[in-house]
Amino acid sequence: MNLLVHGGIVVSDKVIFDGAVAVEGNRIVAVGDSSELRKRFQGFERVNAKGCAVIPGLVNTHTHAAMTVFRGYAEDLPLFDWLNKRIWPAESALTPRDIEIGAQLAAYESLLFGVTTLNSMYFYSDEGSELHAFEKAGIRATVGHGFFEKTVEAGLKITEEMARKWHGRDDGRLRVSVCPHAPYSTGPSSYKMAYELQKKLNSLYGEKGKIILHTHVAESREEASVVKEAFKVDVSGGVVVYLSRLGVLSRDLVMAHTIHLTEEDVRVMKMFDVKPSLNPVSNLKLGMGVADFIKLIGSGLTVSLGTDGPASNNTLDMFETMKIVPLLAKGLHGDPTLLPSREAFKLATEYGARALGYDDLGAIRPGYLADIVLLDLNVPHARPLHDIFAHLIYSARASDVKTVIVNGKIVVEDRKVVGVNMESFLEEVERVKDSLVSRIKGA
Amino acid sequence: MNLLVHGGIVVSDKVIFDGAVAVEGNRIVAVGDSSELRKRFQGFERVNAKGCAVIPGLVNTHTHAAMTVFRGYAEDLPLFDWLNKRIWPAESALTPRDIEIGAQLAAYESLLFGVTTLNSMYFYSDEGSELHAFEKAGIRATVGHGFFEKTVEAGLKITEEMARKWHGRDDGRLRVSVCPHAPYSTGPSSYKMAYELQKKLNSLYGEKGKIILHTHVAESREEASVVKEAFKVDVSGGVVVYLSRLGVLSRDLVMAHTIHLTEEDVRVMKMFDVKPSLNPVSNLKLGMGVADFIKLIGSGLTVSLGTDGPASNNTLDMFETMKIVPLLAKGLHGDPTLLPSREAFKLATEYGARALGYDDLGAIRPGYLADIVLLDLNVPHARPLHDIFAHLIYSARASDVKTVIVNGKIVVEDRKVVGVNMESFLEEVERVKDSLVSRIKGA
Repeated sequence: MNLLVHGGIVVSDKVIFDGAVAVEGNRIVAVGDSSELRKRFQGFERVNAKGCAVIPGLVNTHTHAAMTVFRGYAEDLPLFDWLNKRIWPAESALTPRDIEIGAQLAAYESLLFGVTTLNSMYFYSDEGSELHAFEKAGIRATVGHGFFEKTVEAGLKITEEMARKWHGRDDGRLRVSVCPHAPYSTGPSSYKMAYELQKKLNSLYGEKGKIILHTHVAESREEASVVKEAFKVDVSGGVVVYLSRLGVLSRDLVMAHTIHLTEEDVRVMKMFDVKPSLNPVSNLKLGMGVADFIKLIGSGLTVSLGTDGPASNNTLDMFETMKIVPLLAKGLHGDPTLLPSREAFKLATEYGARALGYDDLGAIRPGYLADIVLLDLNVPHARPLHDIFAHLIYSARASDVKTVIVNGKIVVEDRKVVGVNMESFLEEVERVKDSLVSRIKGA
Repeated sequence: MNLLVHGGIVVSDKVIFDGAVAVEGNRIVAVGDSSELRKRFQGFERVNAKGCAVIPGLVNTHTHAAMTVFRGYAEDLPLFDWLNKRIWPAESALTPRDIEIGAQLAAYESLLFGVTTLNSMYFYSDEGSELHAFEKAGIRATVGHGFFEKTVEAGLKITEEMARKWHGRDDGRLRVSVCPHAPYSTGPSSYKMAYELQKKLNSLYGEKGKIILHTHVAESREEASVVKEAFKVDVSGGVVVYLSRLGVLSRDLVMAHTIHLTEEDVRVMKMFDVKPSLNPVSNLKLGMGVADFIKLIGSGLTVSLGTDGPASNNTLDMFETMKIVPLLAKGLHGDPTLLPSREAFKLATEYGARALGYDDLGAIRPGYLADIVLLDLNVPHARPLHDIFAHLIYSARASDVKTVIVNGKIVVEDRKVVGVNMESFLEEVERVKDSLVSRIKGA
């Protein structure tokens, strides 16, 4: 199906006020004035964008999608109580089906909020997984099976299987990543094995898209000392420096959080073009602190944004994250000129796509993948409209999303996920929760 | 018209899972189980709250509502450039009608976002004002005419007129306040005159509701030194201490911002039970810093929340503000146990009402004013529902607001403002903007 989105404010490399976007298959083939494109693409199915901004779909570069099932389950707790007493025991009660339902819910929430790509780390099983869910839901995703020191062998094997079965599936919409959990939970030789697997998988399947490494780094203040203690390793210089000594850094590595870095860490990240994914909402909520966005961006890194899992956010709302980042940058540095809206918007779109190894995603541009969001501007909070980028960052709400196109297919129309009976799906979600909670209590 | 809201999750002093709220005239007369209240209040018009949370309307204790017309108009600028080069010249071009349209837009945005009470400071004129707008829109509001050192005489006179004409109007829904702008823009004798006027107006009209004083305090780091320089006054101890020496502090005083306070300032605020209104989104965006919520709350003050004007936020979304406050408290103190959701919710409801001098507003309680919001829970981001307060603070979005009742009247139904053609109103807003911008450019 070919589409012509027309009559909206198209936010491309420039802003086109009565603009249109032509989509052939899963790619954007033209961007321009509506009147011109309507003539050129007469046979294309029309998508009316009148009164809408037409923007690239948002890219969430760090989450644990299935953890929607724990949304609001463990609140206001210190990190280690949160993990040890609530989250980890609860996770051990999860079935593959719970994970699939949780991820499906995450995909629907994300799509309705204008997020067209997720980078998620969770537990994979052939019987049910985030990949099964994302395939069904029609969202673009990179998915890895998180593993720890104790589960590294199984983890690598599962990852290899996932890559074989899923990488590049659905017209390239699904990709697989390699996910050692974090330096404090996964030892040095495991990181090396993960890196070797990444190389191997890229040589086997890389022509279908990059296979990235995805891991957590420098989330807590104590991380370096915990790593040192746990694995008796040299963490001098910082946690990233330690990983660089293992030889696992590359431009195809997404590091989530990167809050507590040394100067040397930042220098090394830049040297290898590592991709930091910042998750300010979760970081604040868990009391982890605030990454120095300005330093990371200023050092030339490709900074992108994530929500983290819905158990610590508690949403997958990238509009919220995209606003809080410049707010924190300005507010904590005491400088309102920092991180202008146009730049902030890139963090959640184009730079997110780069972080996930796409060079043809995250912008409305001819040749790019057709992940497009129509945002309703006929709402009181969008008016008057003085500045479209200020609107996108500060006053647009996720709920303004009207229509969503992923990989050339319309997946949200008139604020509804196409082909889904949401009411009955949400009832199923509640049943999954009730059963899960009773199993956790019974354990 | 009497109403029975029934079948929802009623968030009263306890949470009632199949709960109901009976409203007679403008007051709540009963709160309880749906089955029981359906029997007791058979003649009442039914409002079906199935699948909804039933919560008190949110209270925004600091804004400049009419400034919606400048939403996105002046971005990423240092505070004094923002004010001197953009906002103040633009304000001088405003007509009373612009102000009224801007405030009407603010009221619609607020109502659709579940905000039922605004405390706003702007310029009043008999030909058009925020009060005219709020009367029309059906929102509860306290409104004052902001005045500066140069405009104090006119300001006091206008305030007196406003109080005579408007205070207590519309069944008590509208109130008037006295609004000296800020200690750096308004001198000591003006503050004293404002305080005397407040006393006088309370003795004349106080039986229709408290007349509060509403002012900005300690927004910028430099405020104390600017005050000292501008008015050659003794600011030793802090700006609040300086105001206390003028004898203008009382429990009926809302101080917006209160970011840069001394220990002595906080002590004095507590002594007089002054009401701080915190505006974290605007404060961050303008690079002003972050108020120490935890210290202010911990010292026993009645802390409430505001959005500030839409030119520096750029919304009137109190759900967003209500989330960012515990996020910042936890994140910046490094302690995720701070400000649990149930407490955070009070800042935006009951404590807001107290700040504005209401002792019968801001909660779902028999005898209280009937400002009630129905929040849709049948949305992916609300599910599963483990914890209703965590939901209200962290995952609820302003767009979940389905039905809004103010002073016993339904003003929003099925996500639409009752009786308003929004599309044509928003077109009018754009015309107002275009005309305003051309006048500013022509000046």
